[in-house]
Amino acid sequence: MESNKMQVSIIWENDFIFSMTNSDGNQLKMDAHMEAGGQKKGLLPMQALLGALAGCVGMDFTAILQPHMDQVNSIEIVTQGTKREIQPKDFTAITVTFIVTGDVPTDKVWRAIKISAEKYCPVAHSLKPDIIYQLRLNGQEILDQ
Amino acid sequence: MESNKMQVSIIWENDFIFSMTNSDGNQLKMDAHMEAGGQKKGLLPMQALLGALAGCVGMDFTAILQPHMDQVNSIEIVTQGTKREIQPKDFTAITVTFIVTGDVPTDKVWRAIKISAEKYCPVAHSLKPDIIYQLRLNGQEILDQ
Repeated sequence: MESNKMQVSIIWENDFIFSMTNSDGNQLKMDAHMEAGGQKKGLLPMQALLGALAGCVGMDFTAILQPHMDQVNSIEIVTQGTKREIQPKDFTAITVTFIVTGDVPTDKVWRAIKISAEKYCPVAHSLKPDIIYQLRLNGQEILDQ
Repeated sequence: MESNKMQVSIIWENDFIFSMTNSDGNQLKMDAHMEAGGQKKGLLPMQALLGALAGCVGMDFTAILQPHMDQVNSIEIVTQGTKREIQPKDFTAITVTFIVTGDVPTDKVWRAIKISAEKYCPVAHSLKPDIIYQLRLNGQEILDQ
């Protein structure tokens, strides 16, 4: 019974460039910082990490908000990490900001964010740093009540 | 002074599909599991997380092993995560296997893995689960001495 395992494989292309392709043919290409010898040929691994977190909470959000998704016009999710200033320069804190437009009830939107954050998102729960969630709905910052 | 901040932004395309593009134009596209309504249009966020970890240790590895990289023919890095069986189904353990071919000294290869793991890789240090490192060099499993 291996259903609780997930595995990926990445291949070194050249220099600092690594790429992976999942079984559906979807790709992730990564490269190092310019100052470390990178050539801008891929995402930085730490960018991919922030992207994985944003995708994870985003999918939960759309699933939980499903009854109201007809009224959602756009969703952007900005994830900002604060890096430790010394090695290993890991993230010490992360802020996730949902920027949503549409005619949707504020309380339902916050509920979707909180259920994802507290209960579902496996990426968020695999990360060490504290994660703070913020919401900007139709141009206005909305505090969690 | 914002140099210790890193930020990415992802956009909801439709259904459960989210994509991000960094300032160099490199993209990460994500989609949900088929059973959750996904359409195989992108990586699962948890796959992207495992990929980010592999890319991170891979880049450290090639940097630390630089004096010997002329002798390296290929590098594949397999990351396997064990997921909690109940929600939030986060990773509880991760194994990173370096599969390397080339005429390189075993001790230098292990040294590169360990320096990355212990000191440098910011993705590894941002993750909660314990990470176990393994090495397969020229077809043989090599234990850390």
